[in-house]
Amino acid sequence: MQTRIEHDTMGDVEVPSETMWGAQTQRSVQNFKIGNEHMPRPMIRAMGLVKKAAAITNAELKQIPEELSKYIVDAADEVIAGKWDSQFPLVVWQTGSGTQSNMNCNEVIANIANQKLGNPLGSQKPVHPNDHVNRAQSTNDSFPTAIHVAAALQINELLIPAVKRLSATFKRKSEEFKDIVKIGRTHLQDATPLTLGQEFSGYVQQLDNGVARLEQSLVWLYQLPLGGTAVGTGLNAHPDYAEKAAAELAKLTGLDFVTNPNKFEALAGRDAAVFASGALKTLAASLNKIANDVRWLASGPRCGLGELHIPENEPGSSIMPGKVNPTQCEAMTMVVAQVMGNDTTINIAGASGNFELNVFMPVIAFNLIQSIQLLGDACNSFDEHCAVGIEPNREKIDYFLHNSLMLVTALNPVIGYENAAKVAKTAYKQGKTLKEVAVELGFVTPEQFDEVVKPEKMVYPNTK
Amino acid sequence: MQTRIEHDTMGDVEVPSETMWGAQTQRSVQNFKIGNEHMPRPMIRAMGLVKKAAAITNAELKQIPEELSKYIVDAADEVIAGKWDSQFPLVVWQTGSGTQSNMNCNEVIANIANQKLGNPLGSQKPVHPNDHVNRAQSTNDSFPTAIHVAAALQINELLIPAVKRLSATFKRKSEEFKDIVKIGRTHLQDATPLTLGQEFSGYVQQLDNGVARLEQSLVWLYQLPLGGTAVGTGLNAHPDYAEKAAAELAKLTGLDFVTNPNKFEALAGRDAAVFASGALKTLAASLNKIANDVRWLASGPRCGLGELHIPENEPGSSIMPGKVNPTQCEAMTMVVAQVMGNDTTINIAGASGNFELNVFMPVIAFNLIQSIQLLGDACNSFDEHCAVGIEPNREKIDYFLHNSLMLVTALNPVIGYENAAKVAKTAYKQGKTLKEVAVELGFVTPEQFDEVVKPEKMVYPNTK
Amino acid sequence: MQTRIEHDTMGDVEVPSETMWGAQTQRSVQNFKIGNEHMPRPMIRAMGLVKKAAAITNAELKQIPEELSKYIVDAADEVIAGKWDSQFPLVVWQTGSGTQSNMNCNEVIANIANQKLGNPLGSQKPVHPNDHVNRAQSTNDSFPTAIHVAAALQINELLIPAVKRLSATFKRKSEEFKDIVKIGRTHLQDATPLTLGQEFSGYVQQLDNGVARLEQSLVWLYQLPLGGTAVGTGLNAHPDYAEKAAAELAKLTGLDFVTNPNKFEALAGRDAAVFASGALKTLAASLNKIANDVRWLASGPRCGLGELHIPENEPGSSIMPGKVNPTQCEAMTMVVAQVMGNDTTINIAGASGNFELNVFMPVIAFNLIQSIQLLGDACNSFDEHCAVGIEPNREKIDYFLHNSLMLVTALNPVIGYENAAKVAKTAYKQGKTLKEVAVELGFVTPEQFDEVVKPEKMVYPNTK
Amino acid sequence: MQTRIEHDTMGDVEVPSETMWGAQTQRSVQNFKIGNEHMPRPMIRAMGLVKKAAAITNAELKQIPEELSKYIVDAADEVIAGKWDSQFPLVVWQTGSGTQSNMNCNEVIANIANQKLGNPLGSQKPVHPNDHVNRAQSTNDSFPTAIHVAAALQINELLIPAVKRLSATFKRKSEEFKDIVKIGRTHLQDATPLTLGQEFSGYVQQLDNGVARLEQSLVWLYQLPLGGTAVGTGLNAHPDYAEKAAAELAKLTGLDFVTNPNKFEALAGRDAAVFASGALKTLAASLNKIANDVRWLASGPRCGLGELHIPENEPGSSIMPGKVNPTQCEAMTMVVAQVMGNDTTINIAGASGNFELNVFMPVIAFNLIQSIQLLGDACNSFDEHCAVGIEPNREKIDYFLHNSLMLVTALNPVIGYENAAKVAKTAYKQGKTLKEVAVELGFVTPEQFDEVVKPEKMVYPNTK
Repeated sequence: MQTRIEHDTMGDVEVPSETMWGAQTQRSVQNFKIGNEHMPRPMIRAMGLVKKAAAITNAELKQIPEELSKYIVDAADEVIAGKWDSQFPLVVWQTGSGTQSNMNCNEVIANIANQKLGNPLGSQKPVHPNDHVNRAQSTNDSFPTAIHVAAALQINELLIPAVKRLSATFKRKSEEFKDIVKIGRTHLQDATPLTLGQEFSGYVQQLDNGVARLEQSLVWLYQLPLGGTAVGTGLNAHPDYAEKAAAELAKLTGLDFVTNPNKFEALAGRDAAVFASGALKTLAASLNKIANDVRWLASGPRCGLGELHIPENEPGSSIMPGKVNPTQCEAMTMVVAQVMGNDTTINIAGASGNFELNVFMPVIAFNLIQSIQLLGDACNSFDEHCAVGIEPNREKIDYFLHNSLMLVTALNPVIGYENAAKVAKTAYKQGKTLKEVAVELGFVTPEQFDEVVKPEKMVYPNTK
Repeated sequence: MQTRIEHDTMGDVEVPSETMWGAQTQRSVQNFKIGNEHMPRPMIRAMGLVKKAAAITNAELKQIPEELSKYIVDAADEVIAGKWDSQFPLVVWQTGSGTQSNMNCNEVIANIANQKLGNPLGSQKPVHPNDHVNRAQSTNDSFPTAIHVAAALQINELLIPAVKRLSATFKRKSEEFKDIVKIGRTHLQDATPLTLGQEFSGYVQQLDNGVARLEQSLVWLYQLPLGGTAVGTGLNAHPDYAEKAAAELAKLTGLDFVTNPNKFEALAGRDAAVFASGALKTLAASLNKIANDVRWLASGPRCGLGELHIPENEPGSSIMPGKVNPTQCEAMTMVVAQVMGNDTTINIAGASGNFELNVFMPVIAFNLIQSIQLLGDACNSFDEHCAVGIEPNREKIDYFLHNSLMLVTALNPVIGYENAAKVAKTAYKQGKTLKEVAVELGFVTPEQFDEVVKPEKMVYPNTK
Repeated sequence: MQTRIEHDTMGDVEVPSETMWGAQTQRSVQNFKIGNEHMPRPMIRAMGLVKKAAAITNAELKQIPEELSKYIVDAADEVIAGKWDSQFPLVVWQTGSGTQSNMNCNEVIANIANQKLGNPLGSQKPVHPNDHVNRAQSTNDSFPTAIHVAAALQINELLIPAVKRLSATFKRKSEEFKDIVKIGRTHLQDATPLTLGQEFSGYVQQLDNGVARLEQSLVWLYQLPLGGTAVGTGLNAHPDYAEKAAAELAKLTGLDFVTNPNKFEALAGRDAAVFASGALKTLAASLNKIANDVRWLASGPRCGLGELHIPENEPGSSIMPGKVNPTQCEAMTMVVAQVMGNDTTINIAGASGNFELNVFMPVIAFNLIQSIQLLGDACNSFDEHCAVGIEPNREKIDYFLHNSLMLVTALNPVIGYENAAKVAKTAYKQGKTLKEVAVELGFVTPEQFDEVVKPEKMVYPNTK
Repeated sequence: MQTRIEHDTMGDVEVPSETMWGAQTQRSVQNFKIGNEHMPRPMIRAMGLVKKAAAITNAELKQIPEELSKYIVDAADEVIAGKWDSQFPLVVWQTGSGTQSNMNCNEVIANIANQKLGNPLGSQKPVHPNDHVNRAQSTNDSFPTAIHVAAALQINELLIPAVKRLSATFKRKSEEFKDIVKIGRTHLQDATPLTLGQEFSGYVQQLDNGVARLEQSLVWLYQLPLGGTAVGTGLNAHPDYAEKAAAELAKLTGLDFVTNPNKFEALAGRDAAVFASGALKTLAASLNKIANDVRWLASGPRCGLGELHIPENEPGSSIMPGKVNPTQCEAMTMVVAQVMGNDTTINIAGASGNFELNVFMPVIAFNLIQSIQLLGDACNSFDEHCAVGIEPNREKIDYFLHNSLMLVTALNPVIGYENAAKVAKTAYKQGKTLKEVAVELGFVTPEQFDEVVKPEKMVYPNTK
């Protein structure tokens, strides 16, 4: 392998000739051979956006020459677009500030720009990775800014649309199924009836609430650390820089980014990420409930509840022929388990700041972005390959409804809770219908029973 | 022990003569000898409030006689006030719907009322625990309503005031300390300076954000399940009941309670609790950072950082005489560890609903209420016994400030990042001052150095 | 309230006249008004055991007078027996070393002893809480020793017997049910058959493994920190003290306690507790699976799986008469959620030691002891009120078995996986039996089918 | 893109012409576009090992022709060696049994074998993915077997050697530093002295215990589910298959694999993984303590504790020139946070089995393998780039030692705890030395003081 020499403040380093990264990235490649978890694409894109906004703002504030700014912006645009992803070789398990990934971005952008300006890779001229690309920044403010930008973009572009799509599907189903009366189940035991549409409306509400909670958490992600530089004081930045750079990022992304009113909190706390993960795990809890309901209601085909049909997407077993499994539900619930574990990781990491900095940033970025991605993808997959194809098994639904003992609840206001209990217990023990027993015990006439115990009248508030 | 006979739908049960509870409570006492974690006081109060609101609403809607309602309200008022706490013997580890605690409350209120009406304990007349006290309710809607009411009250009455008090103390300190320039620390390593006031301002911001996030989570706790009855349909409740009962609870508590727009979500999901726990663990993360900073900055007295003095409240060691430890910080960080574990519990529990009900409600209530209580109490304790007494150790602060190598950062815009690095490294290796080295290396004159490297000018954005 | 004056190294403190505790306990009462979680009984007992062993050993090594030792031992015996629990008023949320609880124990024992010797409370003579009761100890070694002793005793005396009892019940059931062939379920979908006895044998194995894992974790709890004193060096202890005191504790408890070979690890790490919690959460995972299986198999009575009957212990619903719920399963799964949250707490706390000490000890003790207690109690409760009464619903089991399509798997070796799949799918679509379809498609004769597809032959390895 | 047609029991599927996978893999590619987390290399290797062992055993038991077995073995060997990793395109988020990855492996091996036998890709002849490669297996037993094999191999080959290497380094350092007396710290506050060698010996012990606990957890991973087939009964497997196949895996890997004595537990529980994760998180807790100690002791260089020098591996800051950070410590503590989150995920997943199967297997595999990899890599990295280069800063260590007030503890046995406390407090308040004060207060003569208070005599048990 051919190499060239790059250098940084610690001296010279050999890097592969063709790479766009420089000395500091190379040191990290060599010093951190840990795992295979690379800085995810949304973070690379977000770092590019930060560098672009900084260059524009610095030029506007006369901190770097207009000409250099232009080249930095062009290079950053290519990074944003994903053209240079292969030049971001670093893993998550590096310095806790993300300095090495920040320098990776600075080095790549400087090299792209210098190359366009006709200078060789590693020349650091005329665009210097620290003095120009990183101008008025420290990793300590620019890296957490990238985390906020990455997470906010992924929540807005991927996750919220995915949740809304799934919610819309359930809403359609809920309307389609609004007249299908079925048995309710609490404690896994037979309960009073509701409509299948009502059952699905609960899922819609959970998902819509999930979107609203994500939006509550975005408020905090929109507050950007940029401008705090090394310790929050803004040393070496122009006094107007923080506000202008945030406004630039808002312009570039279309999101409501603003500068964080307190840069000390902005650098030392990662609470916005911790809270966002709180919204994600809440959504995960909702999705777990929904996916479990769907697979249980679709269980069988002959020895389960079997009230729903779900699409058959693949053979279910390598040994049991003809088996079809609720695989989308399983993928979803595994995603949920992952998101809940990620939440623990983010909690520990977010609580571990000291003094002017939190040095668990790459692991926070990694887990937050992964949780967003997994929930978004899983919602889309679940929607497309399962939810849209859910159909009721009307026979089974009817069979259960008319066999349930819990219809007896309708008799409470007429014969009292204790007599109603006696009817249900007797019917169960003797294997009879509620009506037979209620009449036998002399609590009601057959006509009264039929008048009162109508499942379709038991699905809304009904006393006068 | 003397006993009397109580009965329920499963038959007769002996209960101690003097107890106010009845058959179902007694069955639970006997069947669930698990642990010592009882339903906490805020839950008992909240159940009382729910029963009171239901009785008032049911009377207004002509579902129960005005006279009985009045007796139920009086009895509930005593429960709310804490007069009958000893009559709530049940542990958390019971049925997952909280049915037994709900019945405990129904039985106690019925007995109080009937006793006042001159009837013996256990007579269930004229006030029946199910038909009157529990009228238009199921445990499935009234118990989660009590969780919401209890949590919302504790957050409003205990936690938010405590966080605000601590924030106010730090704000005062932040202003007091606004001119004390000190060394910053990132990665635990010396960094550029900031003021002690700025450092404390970060704590203020974290706490104020914490309050705002709690308020975001309250929005969801304010949505009440009451009126959903057994499965969300509202069976056996008056059509106007849900809305009116929520309004009544709002009136009784002064909080913005409303009826949940979808009772299926309201019963089957406990997402509001999961999200509230998300806000609590975020606050916990903030408090962990703050408590750690305080104890590290107060470490010593002679072999640590020693920049802060904290109050000496108790002897610190049973073997090392004269030792004083940061005990309030330790209590706080232990509370944080507990709240984060409680969050895991609530996540698992909240994700585990099936069909029309979540049956992990007591464990959710227990952990949510405990987290609120611990955070609130710990903030008050930390404030009173530590934060108010924090004083700077000016000598130590000055000593560190003027020895730090990171003041070199101020030279970046003048001599460039790489030369500045050379100055710092040389000074460290040779045990010299930055100024000596910077001048020796010919980068600046002594006058230039003094002009540029002024710690007190390094604590705000400063390029033009 | 009448008070007396107690004093410690910080000066005088008023304590209620009648209390047995002294100045340091009183300071903690006043300074830590956080929550209601008190040091649990097993910890008080264990602290008593530690003081007793220390006193015996110190006397033997001529570190304290024989006479004083005897009085300390007598007083400690009363503490061990639970006579003075009311004199341990401190909460978990105190100093992270547990110093205040250790001093609480020292003070109570000194007062008991001095009172017996005719001296007034608070005289600290002739038995001094520090110089005699705490002799050759620091909280830093004696408190974690108490954690190990408490946890080891509770695991041995409560938890392991409870798990074994439940396992024995399932073993009996497994044998009783060994000939009941039933449908298997994987992915909640119908699968090939097994016997109900086999299904239950899995539970037995899980529980027996759980006991073995607890025993693996006990190895570490048996290693005691005692003798490390303040920082692990054993300063102010006799060179033979550590080994002898551990041997004394072994003698007093009948457990295999030994002195930890490295006292620095013993004080600064709480890994033994972290690992023990790992064994507890693994047992919790097993119990969750078992409790879920039981409640699902008992779901219904008419609209669920209904293969098992479980005992009816209490009315299940405050609104649905006659409902019986799997409440012991629910209590168990709530306990599981708690244990998993406690594990998170213990992980965070256990990872947070610094230098010579971990100062998250009370929260570790609290959560570890709670997890042991809850699992032990829940196993006993589940066994007594549920497992012993489990009965098969043979009709339902037979019905499902003979309707399942997955019996087709038996045809794999005869007609191949793909043809078998075709049979199953066709049967499902056309609502026919497997036999009808298999014959119609010409894959087998009716006789061949009957020969091969025998559920009772499908429950063991069967190719030749 | 050119395609060919593959088929499975659900019909035909187009797959890219050149791929070695078949229809079922392709369906999964299309149906599960979720995240980027692929089945990790150790799992592919382990699946290859399982297929190889099964083929050998099946041939030996006359279940498949010797000739076909040979081709399967050859193909499996290539999979084991990593030659076909690109042909395993599936993500973790698929069916919860891992069926699609198991089929992926079956399809790839069949295609390799058939191609070598001169048949086209997709011919499924003479080697059929189900009937031959998957012979006597279900995913339900072979996939969890692969998890056990993969985890056991990675623990034995990567993690244990890495932990031992780091332990050996600390052991060397501990011996080197055995005479360096330094101040101890508890509660972050000055405490009695110990040697730096003693401090490091605690790390050695933690790591060695960690290895022993991993070995305890391996016992369970060595028990293999293979032979249980679909539901644990072993249907369609030869009665001798389970035992022989496990023995074959033991032979192939050199590890102590045996057949699990109860296949129902083996399929439905994933407790071995949950417990192994418990050992991993315990090791993580130890490593967190160690990494934190190292970075705190190395904090500074001028404004921290500064007792240790650690290697300078890379520039520490993009804005503060000359800064060197404890980056290996930070990578380690981020890994710890991840492992603790993974543990939560594994707990949830492991507790979620139903009836005859746990369908959270891919997520368990993913997290377990990731935790092992990260801990192993991080130990190696930390060892090579940090631990080996740790050096004491003797000046700083001496300075702190001789300034500490906690040397006063040595006076306890001579002047009593209370007088000693008075000496320490007075010295602190008046800024004097202990000796000055002790003499002034008349407790000892200067000679006595010097005789008793010798730091180098305070580092071991010392009363007679």
